[in-house]
Amino acid sequence: MSSTDGRSRVVIDGVTPRVDAGEYPIKRIVGDTVTVEAVAYADGHDALASALLYRRDADVEWSEVPMEPLGNDGWRASFRVDEIGPYRYTVMAWIDRFATWSHDLKKRLGAERDLGIDLLIGAAMVEAAAGRATGSDAARLSSMAALLRAGGAGAVRVALAPELAELMSRHAERPFATVAPELSVAVDPERARFSAWYELFPRSASTEPGRHGTFQDVEERLADVAAMGFDVLYLPPIHPIGRTFRKGRNNSPVAGPDDPGSPWAIGAAEGGHKSIHPQLGTLEEFRHLVARAQDHGIEIALDIAFQCSPDHPYAKEHPEWFRMRPDGTIQYAENPPKKYQDIYPFDFETDHWRELWDELKSVLDFWIDQGVRIFRVDNPHTKPFGFWEWLIGQVKAAHPDVIFLAEAFTRPNVLFRLAKLGFAQSYNYFPWRNSKDELTEYLTELTQAPAREFFGPNLWPSTPDILPEYLQFGGRPAFVARLVLAATLGPSYGIYGPAFEQCLGAPLAPGKEEYLHSEKYEIRPWDTDRSGTLAGLIGRLNRIRRENLAFRTNDSLRFHRIDNDQLIAYGKSTPDLASQVLVVVNLDPHHAQAGFLELPLEEMKIDLRQPYQLHDLLTDARYLWYGPRNYVELRPPDRQAHVFAIRRRVRTEHDFDYYL
Amino acid sequence: MSSTDGRSRVVIDGVTPRVDAGEYPIKRIVGDTVTVEAVAYADGHDALASALLYRRDADVEWSEVPMEPLGNDGWRASFRVDEIGPYRYTVMAWIDRFATWSHDLKKRLGAERDLGIDLLIGAAMVEAAAGRATGSDAARLSSMAALLRAGGAGAVRVALAPELAELMSRHAERPFATVAPELSVAVDPERARFSAWYELFPRSASTEPGRHGTFQDVEERLADVAAMGFDVLYLPPIHPIGRTFRKGRNNSPVAGPDDPGSPWAIGAAEGGHKSIHPQLGTLEEFRHLVARAQDHGIEIALDIAFQCSPDHPYAKEHPEWFRMRPDGTIQYAENPPKKYQDIYPFDFETDHWRELWDELKSVLDFWIDQGVRIFRVDNPHTKPFGFWEWLIGQVKAAHPDVIFLAEAFTRPNVLFRLAKLGFAQSYNYFPWRNSKDELTEYLTELTQAPAREFFGPNLWPSTPDILPEYLQFGGRPAFVARLVLAATLGPSYGIYGPAFEQCLGAPLAPGKEEYLHSEKYEIRPWDTDRSGTLAGLIGRLNRIRRENLAFRTNDSLRFHRIDNDQLIAYGKSTPDLASQVLVVVNLDPHHAQAGFLELPLEEMKIDLRQPYQLHDLLTDARYLWYGPRNYVELRPPDRQAHVFAIRRRVRTEHDFDYYL
Repeated sequence: MSSTDGRSRVVIDGVTPRVDAGEYPIKRIVGDTVTVEAVAYADGHDALASALLYRRDADVEWSEVPMEPLGNDGWRASFRVDEIGPYRYTVMAWIDRFATWSHDLKKRLGAERDLGIDLLIGAAMVEAAAGRATGSDAARLSSMAALLRAGGAGAVRVALAPELAELMSRHAERPFATVAPELSVAVDPERARFSAWYELFPRSASTEPGRHGTFQDVEERLADVAAMGFDVLYLPPIHPIGRTFRKGRNNSPVAGPDDPGSPWAIGAAEGGHKSIHPQLGTLEEFRHLVARAQDHGIEIALDIAFQCSPDHPYAKEHPEWFRMRPDGTIQYAENPPKKYQDIYPFDFETDHWRELWDELKSVLDFWIDQGVRIFRVDNPHTKPFGFWEWLIGQVKAAHPDVIFLAEAFTRPNVLFRLAKLGFAQSYNYFPWRNSKDELTEYLTELTQAPAREFFGPNLWPSTPDILPEYLQFGGRPAFVARLVLAATLGPSYGIYGPAFEQCLGAPLAPGKEEYLHSEKYEIRPWDTDRSGTLAGLIGRLNRIRRENLAFRTNDSLRFHRIDNDQLIAYGKSTPDLASQVLVVVNLDPHHAQAGFLELPLEEMKIDLRQPYQLHDLLTDARYLWYGPRNYVELRPPDRQAHVFAIRRRVRTEHDFDYYL
Repeated sequence: MSSTDGRSRVVIDGVTPRVDAGEYPIKRIVGDTVTVEAVAYADGHDALASALLYRRDADVEWSEVPMEPLGNDGWRASFRVDEIGPYRYTVMAWIDRFATWSHDLKKRLGAERDLGIDLLIGAAMVEAAAGRATGSDAARLSSMAALLRAGGAGAVRVALAPELAELMSRHAERPFATVAPELSVAVDPERARFSAWYELFPRSASTEPGRHGTFQDVEERLADVAAMGFDVLYLPPIHPIGRTFRKGRNNSPVAGPDDPGSPWAIGAAEGGHKSIHPQLGTLEEFRHLVARAQDHGIEIALDIAFQCSPDHPYAKEHPEWFRMRPDGTIQYAENPPKKYQDIYPFDFETDHWRELWDELKSVLDFWIDQGVRIFRVDNPHTKPFGFWEWLIGQVKAAHPDVIFLAEAFTRPNVLFRLAKLGFAQSYNYFPWRNSKDELTEYLTELTQAPAREFFGPNLWPSTPDILPEYLQFGGRPAFVARLVLAATLGPSYGIYGPAFEQCLGAPLAPGKEEYLHSEKYEIRPWDTDRSGTLAGLIGRLNRIRRENLAFRTNDSLRFHRIDNDQLIAYGKSTPDLASQVLVVVNLDPHHAQAGFLELPLEEMKIDLRQPYQLHDLLTDARYLWYGPRNYVELRPPDRQAHVFAIRRRVRTEHDFDYYL
């Protein structure tokens, strides 16, 4: 639609939102409004008009919204994305000859000039529009053209009539219109942005000591997980586990005879990535678990770890997918001088890369067929970007509701690239951002431009691989602080379930971030008695997240000033401000901390002359605040955080005040 | 060169410098160094290598510079542009298998592992390189491969030998290398960045009262203009001037019989854009002026105003290039309710736009043939962007040394667009940026990213169209302040010659920015006696600009803190800091102002424990300063500004100190 005609005078630049130069789609969830801005201008002083064009990728016809001028060549319009799947959008702009004429005519009128010729110029434009129109519009335009041509006061009245402007806009010509390059939006289900994850090793789910957990045991836990308010249950790999070079407890290089091995050492005689570890159950039982979870409003997220144990059938059937050593053995994983002889990485530089890609896609297809819609991808940063772009593109073309989470604890450019190419959510550096400055800087980066257009942070205080120092030394108050931060800073967060609930903080060794007796290498049945754990607080937080819509947003996050470095304060809100929340967390797990907090009341549309209510959703306490500056105090171990809904005072038509 | 092979694992993003997404070239002058940075990374932990590729546009072969890693996936390398004309550059990156192997081997050595297999892997790579090499390199690589294959301590010594690394790098394979999209550099002569312009109406150049000035009179002035240090002499249009609707003195709608008219109302019976106003002289005399100016180191800049008087031959010969009104007359210029009946704008939407474009290009070709190399383009923002992009592209393809200055006093997006598409220099909002905050903000915008890659500011304190209020009320000290600012803030600046030298500040009427008795509408012979004018100061400033290389730079400009809002202080430097300058201007033309100035001594590589010299190049006074904070006082009318060279104290090997 773009033109190389020399008469095309309008240029469009800086269409936003976009990712980089538009190579990747922006991300939205279904029901979102996409607000598009562009800079469009032409030479000279003619009036411009501009339209936002959008369509579902599958559609042929564009829908069109007129853009509003913002001044200084800026234009803005919005559209809603009502369906999951890709959309496209662009901006068109053109010289609006009739508007130019009409605008100039009004200025000429003020100067009381003879308008004869000007009215004839307008008449010609109106006649041309009549030619483009049909039916009553055509007739009306013709008669108005005749009036213009007749001149005099009647002609001036017609020239300025809103009806003529409306008709001319409806039958506008768009000579030499310019169209910007098309951009795209990937529209995901709401869970892509707003989700609460619970991680659980199925093999530890048994309630009888000594018995290997099963999918049926996991089903028994579903009610509890749902009661705590989680909507994603993430299971580490459920496939047969290799025996060759199996790791023992606490990651020891030699496994004992009863050691179950790491679930990430995928593949054994019993099968590979499309098989189930026999002790967990059958494929049918897995499907049953997926369905039962969905009954509880929970999606099962599977772990996708594209790597093999030496016992994986691929190693025999497709040695060409691995790198061969000069001694004829397959190259195991290494990070010199460390060796991971229990893991064979795929060789993505193999000549047979196409077959390898197809096979790996078939793994996803297989689990999608079993009802899985969420994949947590293990170490995506050790496989080529082009592979993920292709794979996610293929999967989402057939199943646009599938969500991918990247476990990419790696360098920032790599992390962002994976998000751009299709991962809806990403682990990130949150586990290591503990001070007020670190949290403020990092969460601002993740929730503001440019990252907000493509990056979906999923905040985990800990994982089976990462027990941060802060949790090792802070005790229960530290777990509470990190839980509240994760659940309220990000619309998506997750916990490494039982271990986190029970505030488990013992490391493998001083200075290490690994857990002692890590579940990665042994079965750890968990006490199912939830009294005394964080379960109650977790349930409250998840309910608060669901009920207060502000928590479902990502880019509304704003940090507020509070004059104590151990206290962090931030707010979120819905675009209409109907839901506004304020969170204050004491980052010090040992001491009470207090300070004065400053709120931007004007932005929050809170009347400076009226009190407003701070409703603590954790305790149900209510505080009446006045003005922008108020006192906050948080005293561990009982009170580590406030999670406030802000209730503005509103005067009704009957003159009663109430709080929203 | 880019690959869609699935095995291509390296991605490159964020290559800088570039303009927008690379649609337009960055600008440099001949001899500049272009420092290119890129972000390049791959999945996994393999070592990467990266090269900057560059070539003249006309060449086929790329030159190559290895890029240095900057950490966090950043890479940097530089190249010099030694010739005027376009260059191209890009970045290539690939997995460096040998470096990966070598790096891992060192780590394995530390762990004292058996290296047998690893050495064989290396041997295979070295053999492959031997196959790619020829002559002695091939032989050497083969024998080293044999040693690696033999194993043992000798093999390890060979593996770690710098000679092997060097040979392997020389005969590197670059499997599945990734190449970023190509970018381009427009390389201009130095005058495109660094120039001092003097504007003069030739018709006022006569020294005999009542006689119309001629090119010969302008020749007589050349020595003075050169003595003041200018290297561009800009002449308003020199073409025949229309008679129909000619404007009279002070822009009156009716001209008296002797009124000469505005030179911008181009075209009469005597000819149009390729003709010379008969009273100025002949084409031969014009060519003579151009040549004599060049003898003085001065280029003549011609005014290009693509518009016609009603008497222009085009109006008769090519009515199809204009917009026709319903009464059969040609549409004159308007800004309703104002009419400019002495001017016919071209209709760039004519069906005959190709012929129009070709004709306008022939105008430039004509003057280029007469020796002109600099064009000051009048109101480029009222002609299509596509036209200028084509025109400048065509002209520079044949004459890469031609320089265009845009007189685009218009909205910022339009101004920047014109610069991007090819105008080397631009007028800008400098005339209306007078306070310290305004100057700091605006000049920072113009000299830092992104503008610094494409925008060449030319700073004019006044023009025949613009007499800013600051100059109307400030008297001579205001002229001095604005002169020093223009000459030292920007590498290019210009003055509306005689009027500025004589500090002419009378407006047409109170509140107006036009000159009283504007030279646009009448002939104003100027007193050639330069005593008592600013000529002496101007000459000193231009000499200072030439001799102190820091003034030739644009993006080195940095503003310094000074605790007085009427004092502005800024520095410039060459990349090697051999030339460092500091300018302090008192913006208050009426009162003495004083304050403490803070210099960033660490960045300036000035020893905090040593004194350093401030050498005022205007007065030759020298001041000894200590530490970052020093006192400055400027008292009008005698002392409006300091223009300092900073002379650092350096200890020689003989233990004598001297100042650079």
